[in-house]
Formats: sequence, structure tokens, C-alpha cells
Amino acid sequence: MKIYRVNMSNLSVVTEEVPEAWNVLGGRGLTSVIVAKEVDPTCHALGRKNKLVFAPGLLTGTMAANSGRCSVGAKSPLTGGLKESNAGGTAAQRLAKLGVKALIIEDIPQGDQWYCIHVNKDGVEIKEETELLGKGNYEVISTLTSRYGENTGVMTIGQTGEYKMTAANISVKDPKGHIRSFGRGGLGAVMGSKRIKFITLDDQDGEGINVLDKEKFKNAAKVFNKGLVSHPVSGNALPKYGTNVLINILNEAGGLPTKNFRMGQFEGAEKICGETMYETIVSRKGDPTHGCHVGCVIRCSQTYNDKDNKYLTSGFEYETIWGFGAGCVMDDLDIIAHIDHICDDIGIDTIETAGSMMVAMETGILPWGDGNGMVKLFKDDIAKGTPLGRILGNGADFTGKAFGVTRVPTVKHQSMPAYDPRSVKGVGVTYATSPMGADHTAGYAVTANILNVGGHVDPLSKAGQVELSRNLQIATASIDSAGLCVFVAFAVLDSDLVGQALIDMINAQYGTNWSVDDWFEQGRHVLKTERAFNEAAGMTKKDDRLPEFFSEPVPPHNATWDFTGEELDSVHNY
Amino acid sequence: MKIYRVNMSNLSVVTEEVPEAWNVLGGRGLTSVIVAKEVDPTCHALGRKNKLVFAPGLLTGTMAANSGRCSVGAKSPLTGGLKESNAGGTAAQRLAKLGVKALIIEDIPQGDQWYCIHVNKDGVEIKEETELLGKGNYEVISTLTSRYGENTGVMTIGQTGEYKMTAANISVKDPKGHIRSFGRGGLGAVMGSKRIKFITLDDQDGEGINVLDKEKFKNAAKVFNKGLVSHPVSGNALPKYGTNVLINILNEAGGLPTKNFRMGQFEGAEKICGETMYETIVSRKGDPTHGCHVGCVIRCSQTYNDKDNKYLTSGFEYETIWGFGAGCVMDDLDIIAHIDHICDDIGIDTIETAGSMMVAMETGILPWGDGNGMVKLFKDDIAKGTPLGRILGNGADFTGKAFGVTRVPTVKHQSMPAYDPRSVKGVGVTYATSPMGADHTAGYAVTANILNVGGHVDPLSKAGQVELSRNLQIATASIDSAGLCVFVAFAVLDSDLVGQALIDMINAQYGTNWSVDDWFEQGRHVLKTERAFNEAAGMTKKDDRLPEFFSEPVPPHNATWDFTGEELDSVHNY
Repeated sequence: MKIYRVNMSNLSVVTEEVPEAWNVLGGRGLTSVIVAKEVDPTCHALGRKNKLVFAPGLLTGTMAANSGRCSVGAKSPLTGGLKESNAGGTAAQRLAKLGVKALIIEDIPQGDQWYCIHVNKDGVEIKEETELLGKGNYEVISTLTSRYGENTGVMTIGQTGEYKMTAANISVKDPKGHIRSFGRGGLGAVMGSKRIKFITLDDQDGEGINVLDKEKFKNAAKVFNKGLVSHPVSGNALPKYGTNVLINILNEAGGLPTKNFRMGQFEGAEKICGETMYETIVSRKGDPTHGCHVGCVIRCSQTYNDKDNKYLTSGFEYETIWGFGAGCVMDDLDIIAHIDHICDDIGIDTIETAGSMMVAMETGILPWGDGNGMVKLFKDDIAKGTPLGRILGNGADFTGKAFGVTRVPTVKHQSMPAYDPRSVKGVGVTYATSPMGADHTAGYAVTANILNVGGHVDPLSKAGQVELSRNLQIATASIDSAGLCVFVAFAVLDSDLVGQALIDMINAQYGTNWSVDDWFEQGRHVLKTERAFNEAAGMTKKDDRLPEFFSEPVPPHNATWDFTGEELDSVHNY
Repeated sequence: MKIYRVNMSNLSVVTEEVPEAWNVLGGRGLTSVIVAKEVDPTCHALGRKNKLVFAPGLLTGTMAANSGRCSVGAKSPLTGGLKESNAGGTAAQRLAKLGVKALIIEDIPQGDQWYCIHVNKDGVEIKEETELLGKGNYEVISTLTSRYGENTGVMTIGQTGEYKMTAANISVKDPKGHIRSFGRGGLGAVMGSKRIKFITLDDQDGEGINVLDKEKFKNAAKVFNKGLVSHPVSGNALPKYGTNVLINILNEAGGLPTKNFRMGQFEGAEKICGETMYETIVSRKGDPTHGCHVGCVIRCSQTYNDKDNKYLTSGFEYETIWGFGAGCVMDDLDIIAHIDHICDDIGIDTIETAGSMMVAMETGILPWGDGNGMVKLFKDDIAKGTPLGRILGNGADFTGKAFGVTRVPTVKHQSMPAYDPRSVKGVGVTYATSPMGADHTAGYAVTANILNVGGHVDPLSKAGQVELSRNLQIATASIDSAGLCVFVAFAVLDSDLVGQALIDMINAQYGTNWSVDDWFEQGRHVLKTERAFNEAAGMTKKDDRLPEFFSEPVPPHNATWDFTGEELDSVHNY
């Protein structure tokens, strides 16, 4: 495999050998290590010194189920720290097949031109781009599919990335030509700062992935696959209802943040829950179950049609539905689907902008529950880059500062996802202490807190939460480095056999002799690398804390956020 | 003397004795010590836990020349650190005459009402206020002068403070009924968060200030006074031309930041310089020389009339004229005066918003040099709180983030004043290392760098700058604590006799036996207190650095910013 290093200042491309130390690194492990090694932590995230690094995972390109996640890393313009964001779609496996261990994009162009990047078996080409500037991601993808053919992978930024909004994501074409997102931390703004509108990936005649012990790999992959499809969460709940199965579960648990984290239950939950969504999809001839990348066996994605049975959106996630729904006290699933479509099209993070909307509702810019008002803000302001759009498109924290609002649910300037940290305390610990900022995927304690996966830890008690979050953060860093979907964790947590199969695949591919703990050691190393970068960027323990309003009790359990600083800091003892 | 403690949540007032430890503390010394002791450094600056503290200086209320400065302190919503801002006008001496050592305002109101505070010999009264909400400071002051009489002191916030913009200042009525400002760090937003529109001060029959040794004080005060009026800067240049005498001086030195710090000289300097301003004022029957408070012998303020000889603005400072002038490549002094009038009226910091305008010009929101465009932005957007106004009114850093601009001249999120840090390196060291953020007054190395006051240190060389800035930061903290105008430093630096007279006054008033170094020890203590607060708030060495674009050379000297981190950190070795 090889490293491609693209310099946007002199428009050059260098092909480099993979350093030995990076051989058994992939995904988040590789992006975080490269950013930490090569980027000055104090640099301006949108300036010349930042780098944007793409890397497929350790297992990407193999027959391992759910291994088609691509990582992208950079200094985040939102958090100011090291950021990794990963997504399925058509990027990871094409990069892997092309033998690309990492694609590193450096510096910014000297003139005002915009560019696109094309990667195929012959290398990397940087071309000027004019036609698709200012266009949404759906048009970009359909145009590029015409230009390069159905099989071409695409990573692209929408208008919000061009505006360098810190909630802008990088979108990636999925197998159906729809959109998945590298959602969090504003990496679309970094791509915009380097004036790259899109990256196309043509893997025809690519060298492919070398697996040292094919037989061993195949056997382990079978066990792994079977573990995923036979687990009740990844084999049943997620395929049928998608991630939105969680609305009813969290509402029941009193952990569904409602009206900007004022309550833990939402009156309108029934109207936006996974079961309602499933019936709606089926009745409108949508597709309740598809995978975000080839080889996914969980297939939690779906196609959601409108009332005329026409495509409206896909990859329609619980966090999105929570945010614009319960978070904003709005219970119209079609409007949320419409907003999701717009967010995919203009390339902006739904969790971050749901936070913007909640904060905007605090100010009276629009009333609570005004779904059409939100649609209008996305279409007329954020998509067009008006001043109000610039405020909202820079996220919840920025919106709060613009309007002097103190009730802003963020950590490290990143908006909090769909689980109340007071009544799902394990996730709260992850929000506070993850180097990524408030991020549920970084240590998804909903497992043991709510789903009784990997044991049970009482969500309302502090006991055991620090250890739970710590272990999950480590395991997640390992999973993200393997290029695996985080949902493989359900089966791994509940079955040593599945976990061993995962390690067996890595060992078979790379000739290593890892134990499960060796694999976790990589996760620890990744977390430490990220935290060291953040510290060098100026973060301190003070950044590992929740906003002060979480001292308020949240109904129905009247739970409060009651961790001491020392307790939170002990997460990092490993 | 006494402490008044006002609680805005339960609308109560408590009168407290002055703790012994605070007896010989005043001004910045007292506000910083109180904020550091009583405010959680990690709290939201606009939330319940922040406090707003007003204190007259150690010498305020005596016959000491130029001792009528009032300090206000709080956690800054702009820098996130401890902030002190001071101003002349009608506040300090009235507080002192009323025997108020400090006025501490805590918490925020429970309802939506707005309030005003009235202080007189009988105590403090909190009243609901409706009439003057949404009004500009000029109208507030003229209305209150009618309501309470000519002699009433007024501190007030304009519309921008009501909006809680982080560039909002607190304005104070001057002896002519015009406006001076507690300019920096967004303390108007803190006052707005506590929903206090204005504070009126009626010192009739106040107890007055007790001076222990009146004869000694009187003799020392004479020497001090004579020192100020006989020094060429404070006795001649400042009275005649105001602070704007500096345009020609800095332009000549190549340190006048032009076009957002691209050059050190401005073609249009002649049209906006102090000499041109003086002639304009005289020809329009304005007043080139008046004091911002009773007892000021330097009188660097002035009244600037328009073409019809009607009042346009006053307290028209070099930094304001530099910012909207050279900084924005605009050379129409009347337009700058008009902007200054608006800024006074809506209560917003001119240095911070000049930074906003420079950054806005980087984006093309308005072209370089578009003075009328700036007037329009102030009147139609900032004053009205439109989304664009919210962006600009939150300062240069915020404007840069809103539009993805990397060329943003700030330190600790505060906009840089009128001296290029590369060609006036001593001031650059102060910008980087002051706990206040980029602030020229915090350690005004222009003295030895440019004016040859207190010796000479080559402005283009690193040699001696750290020591110069350190000593000036310490001396300034002492001067700010005494309630003295920072311009007394010119005479103090050049004459031991004047410095000794200053100490003699303090000793005569308080019965202390301080040496000059004892007085500086207070300055060191104040700085350490402020830095400890900032550190506890999450600031690190990384916050003591200039933005990366200052590595570019600036003409005409092609000077660069070449201090290492270690060199900058050594400022704090005292």
C-alpha cells in the first residue's frame, strides 16, 4: 500500500511508502497519528498548516462484515482539537482497493480557484473545478456519476463546506447514490478551506488488499458475520427499525432530551418513533433496510419516501429525528425527513444544527416546535450563507454566543447528541471526557445503561459509569481504527467468540499475533495521541466538563449531573 | 467606607464592612481580587454565577490630579478570563464621595424585567426600568440628567449591552454630559445579562474621603500635579492634539497597522492625524482640550464638531481613528467621528468593532475604505441587532469565525489595538501576555519603543522588550488600582520625584509606609491574581501567543513577529 500526499499550494502529488510504524494502523488510528505528528496543534484549523487525512480501516477491503468505514481526520475548526469522523458509503473500500493507506491533503491554494481530486489506479489528479461550485451534494453526486460512471466513489462538500461553516460535514455517496456523512467536527470546512469541492475514487483495476492467511481469515469472518446477524440488536432491531428504534427506548428510560434538555420524555415520541417510521416507510413503498456500504450485514439504513411515494431521504438516524423532533418539540416526521434531506444536500451535521435550532428557539428567532420555520432557516439562510445562516451553520455554541444564550448543550464547542447525560450518565461521562467533544459514538454507554448489552450499569447512578465509559472509549478507538461500524460492538460485547473472530481476522490479514488486549492497546494509544494533541492545542481539564445548566434536575427522574471533576478526570487513568 | 452587594435575583441590597485585607486596595486591584475570590472561573460569563464589580481607585476622591478613574471587573464574555476595564467620567469620584469602596452586583433577575440602580447617601435602590430600554446612551444620559439633575453620575449600557454583544461596553457620563467608556472585554454584556440598563450616582451629602495626613498629601499632590503638566507628553502633546497625536508618530515609525495589519504606514495618515484634527476642531469652534473627569490636568479629550459647527463626538481617541481609518484604509475624519458617535451611543468598543470591520472587509461584505458602508453597518445592523449586527457586535474573532476568515488580529479573542506588534515589539509582548488579552494600555511599551519616555528600547529588536513589557504591566496594574489615568506614567517614568510624590499621597491617605516597590508589589499581586483566575478558567500558555499570520513581514521595515514561546512566557517571571 502507499500514502498519497497532495499539496494544494503547489498542486503537487507525492507517492510515499507506508512507514513501518503505520503498517498495522488504519482508520482513526492512522488519521489521528498522522494529524498529531504533522499538524501544529496551535495552528488555525482553516489555515495553511492544517491537514486533511483520509484513511480506510485496518480491515477495509476484505470480506469482513461491516468493515467499509472510512476515517477522516484534521484539527477541528469546531472543537479546536484533533477530530476523527468516519462514515460508510463508497470511499473506504475504493481507497483500500486502490492500495491507498492514507490520502493526506496539505496547505491551501494560492489563488481563488476551486479544485477537485480524482484518484484511480494511475494515481491522483488535481483539477480545477467550476461547474459544481455552489451546488448541493445530490446534484454533485448525480453529475459525477454521469461524468465518471455508476461505480465511482464520491466524497464531496455542499454549500456549507464552501462557506467554511464549522458544522459543515463531508458527504459520501452510498451504494444507492444517496448520501452518508462524515458528520461531526466541521471537517467539511477544512475541505472547503483547501478549496476542494469533491474527491472521486475510481477503483477499477486497483491492486486490492493482501490477506496473508486467507483461510484463517475466511473462517474468522464467518464467525464474525454470524455473530452480528444473530445478535438481537444488530441482527433484528437495527435492520428493521434503524437507529430510530431508540426513540421509544430512550423516551421510556426518561433519557430523551426534550426542549433543549429540559425534560427526558417527549409527548410526541409516538409520532416520530422507529415503529411509526417503519410503518410509514413500508406503506409508502420505501426501503426499511439497506446497508450504507457493500458488505454491511446490519443494514440499519433505509429509504424514506414522501406522501407521494417519492424519495425523500435516507440514512435517517435517531439522532437527527431526536434533534429536530424532541429537542425542538416538533413531532412531524415528514418535516424532519425534509430537513434531513436538506442537511445531506447542503452538507451539514444534523446533530450540530439541531443544537443551533434549539438555541435559536431559546431566543425567539422561531417558536418551539416550528418545523416549517426550521426548513425555511435551512433553505433561505444556511444554504445561502446569509448572516443568520452563518450563525446557525457554525453550530450551537456559536449561535448561543451570537444571541447571548447561556443554555447551550455543548462540550468542547460541539453539540450534544440524543441522550440526556443526567439520566444516561455513562454517555454523559463520554460527552465530557472524549477528546472528540460531546459525541455519543465515542463511548456508547447506552449499551450497558439502557440496552443491557455488555452487562447492566444503572443509568441514574454514578456507580460504574467512569469505568464503563473508559472501556467503551478505548474499544471504540480500536473499532474505528479497524474500519468497522461501531454497531459491531453489540455482538463483540456480548460474545467473546465474536471478539476473538475480529482479532483473528486482523492477525490473519497482517500476520500479527494480537490478543484482544493488544487490539485495545492500540485504542489506548489512539486516545492518548488525541488527548496529547488537544492539550498541546490548549485544552485543559476545564474542557472535560459539562455546561453549568446540567446541575438542574431533569424530569421524570429529576436526575442531575453530579460527577466531580476528579471523577471525570479519572476516565483518563489507563 | 463600605461595600454594597446587590443581588439581582432577589433584588436585595446588603451593606458590608470593608474587610481589613481590602483597605488599601482600590480600582483594578479591588475588582480583580473580588472577582477572583468570588466568581467561579469556569462559569458562563453571562450566567448567574458571574459578578460585576465597580470600584473607585485608591486615590479617587482626593485632590490628586487625574485620580478619577473607576474600575469595573467581571469574568469577560469576550476573553473568557478576568477582565478589568476603567474609565474617567462621573462615576469614580461620586462612588468615592459616597464612601463606596466597591459595588458588587450578583446573579440575574428571575423574570424578564429590566432594572436600574440608584446610589445616594441613603444607600442603593433597585427599580424596574422600562422607559429607557432600547435607547442609546446619549438619550439615556440626557433623560437621567433631567430626571435626577445635572450633577448626577451615570453608568449605562446602550442597545448592544442589552443584546449582550461581547464587544458591548459600559458608558459613563463625562463632566460635559458626553460619553466615556469602560471599553474593553464586553462588560456591557455582563451588565446586560443582569438586566441593568443604567446606574445613577447622586453624591450629595456623601461622607467623603478621609485623608489621614492632609498636609503631607497636599504637598505631594502639588509635586505630582506639577510633574504631569511639565512633562512634554502629558503637559503639551496630549492636551493639544489628544491621543491622536500618535497617528503621525506611529506612521513615521512604520507601526501604524494598515489594511488589517498588512502595512505599517498609511497613505491617508495626514488626513486623519492629530494635527489635522486639531485644526479642524478649532476651525469648527469645537474644544480641542478638556478633561474626562474633574481634576484631570492632562485633558486629552476634546469636542469634535461637524461641518455645521454642531457637536459630533468627544473622547475621540487615536485607537478609534486608527481602527476605522488606517485599519480599514479609510481617510475621512468626519466619517470616523460619526462612527465614534454611534459607538458611544449604542455602547460598543471601537477597537473591537474596528477589528470586526477589518475582518468584514476581508470577506467582501464591504470594500476596503468604505466609510459610509461602515456607518450603515453600525446603524442598520449592530444598533438593531440583526444577525449581521450580532456577528460584528461580537467582535473580530467572532466575525472571523462566522465567515471563515483566518486573518484575525486578536489575542485571547480580543481585538488588537493600534500598534503593529512586529514593528513596536514591546507592545506586541504586552498583547500576547497580558491577562486582559490584546490591550495596549496593559503595558504601554510605546513609551520606550517610540516616545523615548522612560529610556529607549529599539522597537524593531527583541532585546529588552520582555523586561520592558513586564515592568510596564506591573506598573500599570498599580496605576489602575490607584484610580489614576495611565497617562500619569509618562511623568512617573521620567522622574523619580513624581513617582515618589505618588507614593507619598497614598501613604498620607492611608497611613501606610510604602516604598515605590511596595506599590509595584501590589501590581504584581494583581497580575498574579488575574493570571491564576485565567488559568483556572482554562487558559494556558497557548493563549499567550499572537495569531500565526504575524509571521508575515510588515513593511516598511519588513519586521516579523519572532519571539519564541519561552521568551514570551518569561514575562511572567517576577
